Amino acid sequence: MHMYTEIQGGITAPPGYLAAGIHCGIKRYKKDIAVLFSEVPAVAAATFTTNRAAAAPVLLSREILNTAQSIRGIVINSGNANACTGDRGMDDARSMIQTVTEKLGVSADQMLVSSTGIIGEYLPMDKVTTGITEAVKTLARDQNTAAAEAIMTTDTFTKEFAVRFRMNDTDVTIGGMAKGSGMIAPNMATMLAFVTSDIAISEALLKRALKTGVDRSFNSISVDGETSTNDMVLLMANGTANNILIDQANTTEFVLFSNALEYVLTTLAKMIVVDGEGATKLIEIEVNGADSELSARAACRAIGNSNLVKTAIHGEDPNWGRILVALGYSGVPFDPREVEIYFGSVPVIGKNYTINFNHDELRKELSRDQITLTVNLNRGDGFSKFWTCDLSKEYITINAQYRT
Amino acid sequence: MHMYTEIQGGITAPPGYLAAGIHCGIKRYKKDIAVLFSEVPAVAAATFTTNRAAAAPVLLSREILNTAQSIRGIVINSGNANACTGDRGMDDARSMIQTVTEKLGVSADQMLVSSTGIIGEYLPMDKVTTGITEAVKTLARDQNTAAAEAIMTTDTFTKEFAVRFRMNDTDVTIGGMAKGSGMIAPNMATMLAFVTSDIAISEALLKRALKTGVDRSFNSISVDGETSTNDMVLLMANGTANNILIDQANTTEFVLFSNALEYVLTTLAKMIVVDGEGATKLIEIEVNGADSELSARAACRAIGNSNLVKTAIHGEDPNWGRILVALGYSGVPFDPREVEIYFGSVPVIGKNYTINFNHDELRKELSRDQITLTVNLNRGDGFSKFWTCDLSKEYITINAQYRT
Repeated sequence: MHMYTEIQGGITAPPGYLAAGIHCGIKRYKKDIAVLFSEVPAVAAATFTTNRAAAAPVLLSREILNTAQSIRGIVINSGNANACTGDRGMDDARSMIQTVTEKLGVSADQMLVSSTGIIGEYLPMDKVTTGITEAVKTLARDQNTAAAEAIMTTDTFTKEFAVRFRMNDTDVTIGGMAKGSGMIAPNMATMLAFVTSDIAISEALLKRALKTGVDRSFNSISVDGETSTNDMVLLMANGTANNILIDQANTTEFVLFSNALEYVLTTLAKMIVVDGEGATKLIEIEVNGADSELSARAACRAIGNSNLVKTAIHGEDPNWGRILVALGYSGVPFDPREVEIYFGSVPVIGKNYTINFNHDELRKELSRDQITLTVNLNRGDGFSKFWTCDLSKEYITINAQYRT
Repeated sequence: MHMYTEIQGGITAPPGYLAAGIHCGIKRYKKDIAVLFSEVPAVAAATFTTNRAAAAPVLLSREILNTAQSIRGIVINSGNANACTGDRGMDDARSMIQTVTEKLGVSADQMLVSSTGIIGEYLPMDKVTTGITEAVKTLARDQNTAAAEAIMTTDTFTKEFAVRFRMNDTDVTIGGMAKGSGMIAPNMATMLAFVTSDIAISEALLKRALKTGVDRSFNSISVDGETSTNDMVLLMANGTANNILIDQANTTEFVLFSNALEYVLTTLAKMIVVDGEGATKLIEIEVNGADSELSARAACRAIGNSNLVKTAIHGEDPNWGRILVALGYSGVPFDPREVEIYFGSVPVIGKNYTINFNHDELRKELSRDQITLTVNLNRGDGFSKFWTCDLSKEYITINAQYRT
């Protein structure tokens, strides 16, 4: 089905990358410091949270990336988001970069920093500094899963994925790790993803591929519809595949890479949805026939963020009315009489509100762990997919019972 | 505190209005047809849902109100929203108006129509026609509560409020009834409000007062953040108070009326919030110091629609981080270091993220049934209030267990 071969190895699947994940004591028992390092300089692209209360590591990494020609990697801690921490937070983030670059023997603008966890508390810098020093010592190709563990907060499983594909006569690899889960305060469920490749590609095209890929993956999922202070997606390409540099968008090579990247990002994004707090079902929403991809995505988002749709699916209720209402307030142009809605392959409502479905088939469809809602607006070519999870009582339990 | 005297009588508190509320069989046992009628022609203003899947009665009432100089009232049914019902739904809505205007002996463009309940099903028109005929026969000044009952869907109590105030040497009365509650499908929790006054006022100023009042009341509440196919607020003024016609905005009289109207609308809106599905606490959100009232309202809405804030309050958790994060993605300009947050009168976070509160006081504040969250952005004069309820497991139970 895919021309991409799924392989093991996560972020160190592509040659030239090393990883580390250790416990330094920010959290009581679990791993809390990760380092990702490329043995050679890599071009990089990143997307950061648009939240105005962006955390210190986000502000600092954005600043570094704005001027750096290449980078070598990133240091990440979990257990503390270093958010809402003012000037001292900025100093602490700078100090993390200083420690990791000194130990690695690279210049201070070659590494980025990322944090996730409690907000409004200062980092325990003695532990963090010792931890980074230890982590650098353990950097190795086989430490990808340790790194994936060290970035977790409320996640219940590590999220890693990698693919390899043939491009002309070269093997190209893309690997990644992510963390997500619904927000649980004071651990904000920061959505973090770190993706590596050995491809040789220009920075401009790497940015372009990442933007499209993130729009179609991490920007097309919703666990609870909120953005955090620390969200970040980083993509590095270190060129060790030795392919001819990709610097034109209208080439087979760029399309091949972009599609593979989208596949990796989408797979990681779906893992985040499946691990949503209290989630029991993965809901895939497909909107076809919208005026544009943007409209289709807005329609998907309105449906996917609707508490009522999410609760109906939890209750296995084929409630097409709630879907139509969400479409109605999405701001997307459509004529309700033209709308067709399917649950899986079972039509639920047709044009002119024609209701004609097989209850048994529908009941069976709704009992699955993965449910696809397909909506056709019958207007244009706009198409988008979106992933969300159902809303269960467990979500309330997790989020109401935590005490700050 | 207020110069307005709270009185009994709801929508028939102002002279010249009659009401009816009866059971016709759309619902199994409960009242489902209401009529509101002014003995003399009244100027009217209304706001309708912006949902693109607006129901037939909304489309028809909007059309009538666009051209009518005055109206006499409205016929309302509950139990069936007449939404997503296509041409037949439009015919049914027209038929309801035809029946009620014939029985009342007024012309067909003098009455409006409104529906709430199940969507995607046709009205049982035989029952509805008989019901309207019966309702008209029972029209009386003391039937206000019967009417308020007849517009309920999942509401657990009737929502009525009326005030009287002195304007120069005249008594002026404003009365209203509403229905709300979270959406429960296929009964969409349409938010309906019908407000009457005996004031003499120009249509232009009535519209203006309603727009401001609705923005500060029904548009400043959230139960589950969704808009329905049938939302409508109607305001009628029949002039029986015999005051000198108000036709200038910059007069004491207009300000007096506008404030009284806002008080009535706000009181009804809060009743809807309190009756939210599974709600155990009324949350009042105040944002001060924003760039504008619009910014303040957007900030309020982001906080009030946040599942995480609502769940935290349910768990009596003073989670200022979630409030700051919601502010961060609201799109409203602010500097997080300038933000101050209070729970009740207890400061939770001050400028530069200063945390310094008395845990016991805070715990006491959070245990109340009504909680005020005050946020000061310390930028400008923009101020807004917003009301929402907490998010409990009961919400999930109600919305997941219903079977269409």
